[in-house]
Amino acid sequence: MTTTAAHTAAGSGVSEAELEAGRRAYELDRKHVFHSWSAQEQIKPMTVIRAEGSYVWDGEGNRLLDFSSQLVNTNIGHQHPKVVAAIQEQAGKLCTIAPQFANDARSEAARLVAELTPGELDKVFFTNGGADAVEHAIRMARLHTGRYKVLSAYRSYHGGTALAVNVTGDPRRIANDYGNAGTVHFHAPFLYRSQFHAATEAEETQRALEHLETTIQLEGADRFAAIILESIPGTAGIMVPPPGYLQGVRELATKYGMMFIADEVMAGFGRSGKWFAIDHFDVVPDLLTFAKGVNSGYVPLGGVAISPEIYATFADRPYPGGLTYSGHPLACAAAVATINAMREERMVEHAADLGETVFGPGLAELAAKHSSIGEVRGVGAFWAIELVKNQQTREPMAAYGGSSPAMNELIAACKSRGLLPFANFNRIHVVPPLNISAEDARAGLAILDEALEATDRHVES
Amino acid sequence: MTTTAAHTAAGSGVSEAELEAGRRAYELDRKHVFHSWSAQEQIKPMTVIRAEGSYVWDGEGNRLLDFSSQLVNTNIGHQHPKVVAAIQEQAGKLCTIAPQFANDARSEAARLVAELTPGELDKVFFTNGGADAVEHAIRMARLHTGRYKVLSAYRSYHGGTALAVNVTGDPRRIANDYGNAGTVHFHAPFLYRSQFHAATEAEETQRALEHLETTIQLEGADRFAAIILESIPGTAGIMVPPPGYLQGVRELATKYGMMFIADEVMAGFGRSGKWFAIDHFDVVPDLLTFAKGVNSGYVPLGGVAISPEIYATFADRPYPGGLTYSGHPLACAAAVATINAMREERMVEHAADLGETVFGPGLAELAAKHSSIGEVRGVGAFWAIELVKNQQTREPMAAYGGSSPAMNELIAACKSRGLLPFANFNRIHVVPPLNISAEDARAGLAILDEALEATDRHVES
Repeated sequence: MTTTAAHTAAGSGVSEAELEAGRRAYELDRKHVFHSWSAQEQIKPMTVIRAEGSYVWDGEGNRLLDFSSQLVNTNIGHQHPKVVAAIQEQAGKLCTIAPQFANDARSEAARLVAELTPGELDKVFFTNGGADAVEHAIRMARLHTGRYKVLSAYRSYHGGTALAVNVTGDPRRIANDYGNAGTVHFHAPFLYRSQFHAATEAEETQRALEHLETTIQLEGADRFAAIILESIPGTAGIMVPPPGYLQGVRELATKYGMMFIADEVMAGFGRSGKWFAIDHFDVVPDLLTFAKGVNSGYVPLGGVAISPEIYATFADRPYPGGLTYSGHPLACAAAVATINAMREERMVEHAADLGETVFGPGLAELAAKHSSIGEVRGVGAFWAIELVKNQQTREPMAAYGGSSPAMNELIAACKSRGLLPFANFNRIHVVPPLNISAEDARAGLAILDEALEATDRHVES
Repeated sequence: MTTTAAHTAAGSGVSEAELEAGRRAYELDRKHVFHSWSAQEQIKPMTVIRAEGSYVWDGEGNRLLDFSSQLVNTNIGHQHPKVVAAIQEQAGKLCTIAPQFANDARSEAARLVAELTPGELDKVFFTNGGADAVEHAIRMARLHTGRYKVLSAYRSYHGGTALAVNVTGDPRRIANDYGNAGTVHFHAPFLYRSQFHAATEAEETQRALEHLETTIQLEGADRFAAIILESIPGTAGIMVPPPGYLQGVRELATKYGMMFIADEVMAGFGRSGKWFAIDHFDVVPDLLTFAKGVNSGYVPLGGVAISPEIYATFADRPYPGGLTYSGHPLACAAAVATINAMREERMVEHAADLGETVFGPGLAELAAKHSSIGEVRGVGAFWAIELVKNQQTREPMAAYGGSSPAMNELIAACKSRGLLPFANFNRIHVVPPLNISAEDARAGLAILDEALEATDRHVES
């Protein structure tokens, strides 16, 4: 594609019937659909009438290159034919069965997840998504340790249910925090905006670990059931942990008898160029949560991979948790097909390669060129562009938790050029499907290059 | 079917390949699947290799009549061809899209739910299941009222995540209760085991409402965000509220400025012989939660239907909640097809009719005949058989929260005769698909009639 007009309706083959269905979808949406995280009367949802591979089509029939993977979940792109076929086949065979039974789709999905997860995390509890995976991981840790408090990082996201949103460290927690969830937040490494006045990665790592251990001691060395961390924080800004940090966390967790929960809901299943982001750091957590990429969200699915020690706690004592759709056969069949397709088509390796050959150098080039870029960072198909009003002061282009005209202009400039971006506060994330072609990846960067003039105009000297 | 040998492998047409897949499923299950609500090494899961209509086939190829609807969710039975076809069609079109977009499947599902729900509950927030529906309904009520505490009933179930399991009033809450969830439990009407020493339904209703109002006053008349009740409590025992009770609750909720959340996760979508159980009582709640029957669990889906007043709270103020799969197109397409099939095939009317012509009279007959039956109660396709050691003392056949040899013998007797029962503590629930044939319904009751000799033998005089 070019960066100009190839995405418009004329070239997309969208039919009038699809457009009409889209108009009706929008009208009914405004009458009846209550949307996530939104002021309901202040939104004008974009209609999606079609999606395929790395593209979606909006309600006007415009084709957009999906640099968001929706909510960073369609790691295999839209409508992957092997996974669609597997869903159709399983639908014809057995859509659902209660969680107490054994079933082939459920068993095979568990086997594959166990095979991929690090260490001996060989038991899998399936949930419907990431939030309930986090809820159950924390429950397991609490019951295994007999302790209550949970450590988690500021600038993190762990899900939307009450407990998951309370371990979350982003503004969405605040309205849901009644001060009694048992959560304690600390600062994880983020050299670009260091809390520790560090000048180097090594210094940031050392000081962040000292800060974590001090927090543990001041809050109660024997009080914590778990520490939960995104192996690479996602929506909060894709801050790849510096060398040594997660090893240090692992050691502190062991030292203080806490379970280490690696939240791989967004970072897992190839996003970082390895199956799990924690694989970059040679660390094995006690519990690992997943969702999104496990089946690209084609059918809702999440889960927790469990260490032998924690499993043993529930060998002869009932685990007090469950859900009707745990190990849902249709969702599990989609996971089996997704994992197999990712392996066959070497998508994880492709994501790693894109990071090294396209996104890394391409984004560095944009950073060198655009005065509104403060930093670019990431790995694999998991990158953030941090936009600032001033490269020296690093003042964000939108306040933490908010938006700004500059950011809205950037988003609009992307869309008008045929790119669907992922935006959060003062950042644009580059998080396309793992199997995007190098050509499309470069085309997306070229659109960003043009669109970034919108924020460059807002740079204050 | 007959009540003897027609369910065995010989007559079922199960292939050796299916049996072999089942054996492998079992083996991998034991290696890798962590099961809901279980002591992992003390279970021997039944394998399910096939399901169709009101039947499932176990790992030995035995056909079982499904009197459980799994976890009371397959209201349209297994593998309904219209819904399977709709899932296959939607899978080929668009499996998933992020929640911020408008999409035809999502919009149409919302329209249908809004059309079916009582009053003006015309805005729909979709979740992945019942637990997160309850979590979000409580969050909406808390933010709408600016209050924290929530009232819920003992002998209730509202879901497995931390907040949902804490409003739950069954033993599964206890291990998850740290005393800080803001929940207050009270006694709802249950004449057979009246807390209020009532002799009649009218007395039970009046005393239960007095008890509720006293509880509100003693806990703080202006402190409650919500009262949440299953319109007909499900797993806890199918205690159909006596006339006037839910109207009284509605009045108290209004009087004390609380939101009334009707939890219709199990009771809704036709189970009681009406679209929603609350329709029996001519009451409109402020929020209504649903899951299970909305699409029979063919694809995970739940949600909350929202009153105009609560919607208005989030018109210009962001609702601080959401999830990646809210309004999942595949799940919503399954809901659309399910609701349409239920209407076309008049399943709700059929369930009502079964209640009046088969289950009501048939279970009354069993109660008259079997010394181990203390009470039968229910409506539509939603019935409980309460088993007791002694009809005078009403001592349960298994302790609250536990099991017993007698109950295990009853369950085994059902299974060996080709019936898959739903059992909870000292109860068997009769909760087949709504579209079970009258013939199969009667055949199931005939099996129960034989199997109940197992508990009759344990009656203590």
